[in-house]
This record gives sequence, structure tokens and C-alpha cells, in this order.
Amino acid sequence: MTVTIDHIRAAADVLAGKVNRTPSLRSACLSQISGAEVVLKLENLQLTGSFKVRGSLNKMASLDPSASAVGVIAASAGNHAQGVAYHARHLGIPAVIVMPKATPFTKVARTEALGATVELFGETFKDSQAYALEEADKRGMTYIHPYDDPAVIAGQGTIALEMLEEDPDLEVLIVPVGGGGLIAGIATAAKAVKPDITVIGVEVASYPAMYRALGGEAPPGGGATMAEGIAVKTPGELPKAIAGRLVDEMELVEESSLERSVQLFLEAQRIVVEGAGAASLAALLEHKDRLKGRKVGLIVSGGNIDSRLLASILMRGLVREGRLCRLRIEIPDHPGVLSSVSGIIGEEGGNIVEVYHQRLFYDVPVKEAELDVVLETVDAEHVCRVMDRLQAAGYPVRILGGSSTGQSTYTCQT
Amino acid sequence: MTVTIDHIRAAADVLAGKVNRTPSLRSACLSQISGAEVVLKLENLQLTGSFKVRGSLNKMASLDPSASAVGVIAASAGNHAQGVAYHARHLGIPAVIVMPKATPFTKVARTEALGATVELFGETFKDSQAYALEEADKRGMTYIHPYDDPAVIAGQGTIALEMLEEDPDLEVLIVPVGGGGLIAGIATAAKAVKPDITVIGVEVASYPAMYRALGGEAPPGGGATMAEGIAVKTPGELPKAIAGRLVDEMELVEESSLERSVQLFLEAQRIVVEGAGAASLAALLEHKDRLKGRKVGLIVSGGNIDSRLLASILMRGLVREGRLCRLRIEIPDHPGVLSSVSGIIGEEGGNIVEVYHQRLFYDVPVKEAELDVVLETVDAEHVCRVMDRLQAAGYPVRILGGSSTGQSTYTCQT
Repeated sequence: MTVTIDHIRAAADVLAGKVNRTPSLRSACLSQISGAEVVLKLENLQLTGSFKVRGSLNKMASLDPSASAVGVIAASAGNHAQGVAYHARHLGIPAVIVMPKATPFTKVARTEALGATVELFGETFKDSQAYALEEADKRGMTYIHPYDDPAVIAGQGTIALEMLEEDPDLEVLIVPVGGGGLIAGIATAAKAVKPDITVIGVEVASYPAMYRALGGEAPPGGGATMAEGIAVKTPGELPKAIAGRLVDEMELVEESSLERSVQLFLEAQRIVVEGAGAASLAALLEHKDRLKGRKVGLIVSGGNIDSRLLASILMRGLVREGRLCRLRIEIPDHPGVLSSVSGIIGEEGGNIVEVYHQRLFYDVPVKEAELDVVLETVDAEHVCRVMDRLQAAGYPVRILGGSSTGQSTYTCQT
Repeated sequence: MTVTIDHIRAAADVLAGKVNRTPSLRSACLSQISGAEVVLKLENLQLTGSFKVRGSLNKMASLDPSASAVGVIAASAGNHAQGVAYHARHLGIPAVIVMPKATPFTKVARTEALGATVELFGETFKDSQAYALEEADKRGMTYIHPYDDPAVIAGQGTIALEMLEEDPDLEVLIVPVGGGGLIAGIATAAKAVKPDITVIGVEVASYPAMYRALGGEAPPGGGATMAEGIAVKTPGELPKAIAGRLVDEMELVEESSLERSVQLFLEAQRIVVEGAGAASLAALLEHKDRLKGRKVGLIVSGGNIDSRLLASILMRGLVREGRLCRLRIEIPDHPGVLSSVSGIIGEEGGNIVEVYHQRLFYDVPVKEAELDVVLETVDAEHVCRVMDRLQAAGYPVRILGGSSTGQSTYTCQT
């Protein structure tokens, strides 16, 4: 069993008019930053906010009338859940989505809003999956695997067809890898249409499943990651077989690199991208010397990211760039000092947004106190100027929580 | 002097390959929320993050060699500055951008990074503009007006040509209005190509300049707005004349409506849009009964929004939807109470992110204290459940800062 370019062309016919043909956007900004000629395939603007609708629609459209009448079942609390639910409703197919018991209510609600029945089962995703497989058997429903299925893989492969139609001169594709369905489909389509194209897969370093499956050496990993969409412990069998044949290389990216890529997409490209979706940009930026001057397509696989996480990425970005900082200032404990300190900060153009002033619990001599001030500043250099002025006025000062200097940041000239 | 469809078609030839042909994206989500069939013209994905590059390129490309050699001058600290600077460099034209003295350094730096010379002059934007006009005369440079110029208007009009090529069946266009250059160009092109199309302009209620210029009655307004890009006190003369002939109606939207539209673009559509750019969506949502079932094009004019503002919009959205709340809880001042209160909150599934516990300065009897707790919650109903449990356990409680109920929110089923 494998997937061929004919399967993928057939999938493209099935999908036509039913999913978004998402934009292939040339990014002047990311091209300038990376030195490559960057084209973004914006699957974050896909229906339900991720590429997953492609594979699940292609699978469900292949069911015969009796299977459609009984319905489908899947296990997922994320993009796959939305993808299955969305087109099940449009095809009139009953859909059951199994999620772990501790799934946040918002994820349940979002999937129910799409018309699916959500069943909560088990502690882990593995439990939910085992239950869904059992129930599929018991109820005669079709189990929709998130990646280990030729119809699903063929659906995801339509992305590469669209990209190469828009930009036949693409030389490299960079693809986020979780279970491997996306890269298996993309590699199959891309290598068939353009055999000399390079296909690079990316995983987050804490989940190097495909990397190891294809012979790379990496520590076992695991743990929390912002790239939930690709935090998979074992790749699918069929994706692994296809990737082994067609994928040119696998790369691993660090969490901090993902975070900065999400921020860059937000600030410089003005799009919202989830952690997994930013993996392709993270890999490009880590390997830009090698990819300089080449025409590179980045698959931006999805945009479903929690608002709290997004806000915190924005704020941490400000701290990293010295546009927000917290200073701890040593002051003598007598009247008028707060006025003097805040006067100096104001003269230097710093905007005070929070002040903590307490003397009971700090580790300083009894006649001294410490003042913590949160400031809006312009950049790291501005932070230094404010600190120098305070030092010169006799107030020793240091930066708290997150250095505002030393980390490279990207600036964009487009 | 006016602008014709021929000027706009000529501008399209000038712009071809030099600016992004931005996506016309069907939005399943916003269609479902509004009841209209919504197409987004994503000028936030344009070079420099706004439509402004179109008009300024068309203007600068029209200069003869000697004018190009001397250079151009403009007054702006925003999107117009970027738009002029970007193509001036690509055309090899020297560019001076005048900004008010108090312009944040980041805006200066961003424009300088594009190769322009920034001169700081005056307290207000009006001062900068007067200075730029004078200097244009003195130095023999060409002044690039942000909107009151036929070449600039023709450049902006190319947006409508692209939209109607992609979707000839569009029935309504909704366009943000500041100085009026964008809507003048769009109305000229759209009405020439499709005379029965409806063109609706939108201003923020605090800057109803075109609304009043075309005969509407509104209070004088002014003040702070998040829609800086359209906070203009007087529309351009030529835009006003064109809009008076071709624009079907002007609408005003409130600040809160803009804020929720920016949030909706971020969370449901996964794109970053500035306040002015969200005005078209705000107007659609306020008039959705009237526009139900019609095919509506929203001009999403730009995506240049400060990260701090973006983070704060996200956080305020969470508060509005009951996903973040601050509770003030009255407690007896004795040991063990904090443990009891936090136990109740934990059992109800609330996630405590901040605690303030002080008794010196609250207005309560000496044997009582107040506890402020910031919680992550699931929705407004969840907040009520937590509060009910606390009340039942003998801890009077109320919500602080921003009601978490009562305001309608939009949920999306795509």
C-alpha cells in the first residue's frame, strides 16, 4: 500500500471548491531576513485554521453510502478534530470525536459547534485513541486516522500541487512533521512533479520521532512544547515508509526558536501561526546560510494558538527586544526618593507601567530599600541609558527576569 | 482634475510585479458570523503591511528623471512613511520623511531601515506637514501627499480591480476612510467596472471627517483612537469630490467595535490587523441584518499594530469572554483561609495566576481582610460557578475590573 501522484491528483478534484486554495505568498520580509527567496503556503488561513481538513475530507468523501450513514469516529482534541467535524457535517456524516477527559472545555465546545458528538474518555490521548478504535469496531463506524492512512496522506499532498502550480521554480520545501501525514503527501506530490526538489522535514527537538525513525540520533525527549500539533511520539507506519524514500533531510528546532518564529510571523508578516506551524520558519532561520539564494517554500501548517499563549509570546518578545523591562533599584529609605527616581526615568523617556516598593522582605540593610519598576522602553540601548543615569545619580540598579540584551532579534526592511 | 478608470488601469500596469497582488480570501468564519458572503482583501499582507505602497509607487513612478534625481519628501510617522520609503529606495529616488519630534524611536528606525532620511520637526503632524511642504519648495523636491493626489488615488484604486477580477459577483465593498484616497480610488474603479456595486465608507466615530463633509451630522470628535490610520480631521479635496459622487453611504463605528474586530481577525481568521484595517469588519457586524445574504468585500487595509496594544487586546478579550477574571474575596483574617479559598477555586477548575493579599489598606473591619485573585477560567458561566461555591462557603465575592458577562461575543463554526 502506498500513495501515488494519481491519488493526490484525484484528491485535488475531490477537494476543489470544498477547501480553501490557500495563498502562496511571497514574503519580502522573510526573504530579506533569511537571504532565501521565501514563499509561504498559508494553511493557517485554511478552513478550521489548519491543513487537516484536506486529508479528512478526502478520506470521508471516499466512504460508500452505507459507511457514510453509520458515521466516522476519530480521536483528537486539536486540529484533526476540527478537520473531521467540519466536513462530516457538510457531507451529512455523523461524527464522534473522542478526547481525553481533561480536555479544556473550549476545545470540546469548538468541536461540538461544528456538529460533532464529543465523547470524553481516558487520561491520555493514547487512551482516547484505543477507545475510539474499539468503538469504531463495535459501532461499525469508520475510524479516521490523523495520518496513517493513504487517503489522508493524499489529501495533504494537494498542498504541494498547489504550491508548484503557483511557483514551479520552488527548489526547497520545508514541512513540519508530527505523525508524518503532511510530509508524506507533500513529498509524494512534489517529487513526482519536480524530481529534483529538496524536501526537508522539521520536528521540535523534544519530539524527534521521525528524525530517529529515519536513523538520526537524538535524546528521547518528551515534555511540554508549544508545538502541540507535532508533539507525536511515534510516526505513522505508512508516512515513515514514504518519508524514508522521499524526504531529503530531517531537522530539529528548539522551543526558543519556535517562539521567535511565531513572534516574527505576528509582527513582521502579520499572520497568526501556531507553534507547529512556525517550525518551518524556525528551520529556515537556523539553516539560512545553507539555503541562501534558493527559492524556499515554507508550509505554514496551522494557526490555532491559544490567546493567552499568543499574548505571552508578544510580551516576552518585548522583553527580549528591550521594549519592556523590569529594573530593581537600590534606594535609601527616606522621603522624596521615589520622586527622584521616577523623575530620572521620565527624563530619559522611559514610561513606568508598574512599581513595587517594599522594604520588609528584601535582603538589604535596614536603612535601604529596593524598588522594582516595570518600564516601557524603546530598545536595549535605551534600557542601558536609563540604567546609566540611575547609577550616576547614586542608585545601583540591575535588570530582573529576562535579559534585554545579547539575544539577536530580526528586523525587517519591508 | 479627477481620476478615471484609465488612470487606474495604467496604475495597475505600473504596479504589476512591484507590489503584492494580495489574496482575496473567502472567509467561511466571518460569513457564518455575519450572514453575508464575506471576501477579505488582505492588504495587511501587502509590502510594508499596508495598501499605501500602491499609491506612493504610482506617484513616484510618474516623476521625470530630473524630479527623481532631486527626490521626494513626505510627512508621516505611519504607513505612508513606509510606503514612500520602500519604493523610493527601489526606484533609486532620495526620500525625506518628516515626522513630529515626539515620534517613537521605533517608527523612525523602521523608516530609516527602508533607506529614507527622517527629519524630526514640530509638535504635531500638522507642523510636520507644513514644514515638508515648505522644504519641498525650497529644495525642489516632489511632495508626496498621502491622499490628495490623483496618482496616489489611482494607485489605491488598483485594489478594486484585483477584487473584481477575482470575484466579479461582489455586490458591496466596505472601505476604511481617513483622508479618503483609498475609497476615492476604489469607488472610481469599482463603479466603472460594475456600476451597480455598493461602496460603503467607514470612519471611527471620533473622526467623522468624510461623514460630515458629505452632509452627515456627527459631534466634532477627536481624541485618542486605536484606528490611528484613519484619525484624520479633514478629508482631501479631491477624495471628497470623488466620494461625494460615487460613495453610496458613510458609516461610523465605535472604538469598542474596532477592538472586537481586531480580536476576531486574530482569533477566528488568524491574521493581524491594525485598528483602521478592522473598521470594515466592524461596520459589517454593526449592519449585518441589512447585508445578510449579500456578497461583501471587506478591505483589510493594514496590519501595522503595536505589539503591546495587540497583547492588551488579546488579554481584554479573555476578560470579556470570562476566560480571565479578577475576583475580590472577603475573608476573615486568620491562618488557613488562603488554603481553603484556593482549594475551592482549584476544585472548581479555576487556575490561579496571581494573588494579592493585604489587609492594611482595605476598607473592611479590622478582623477581616480582602483577597484579590486573578484566575484563568473557561467562560462566563464557569466564573459564576466559582463565585457561587465561594459564596456558599461563606466568602463574599465580587468581580473586579471589566465585567465578564453580558457582552455578546462571536463564536465561529469554521
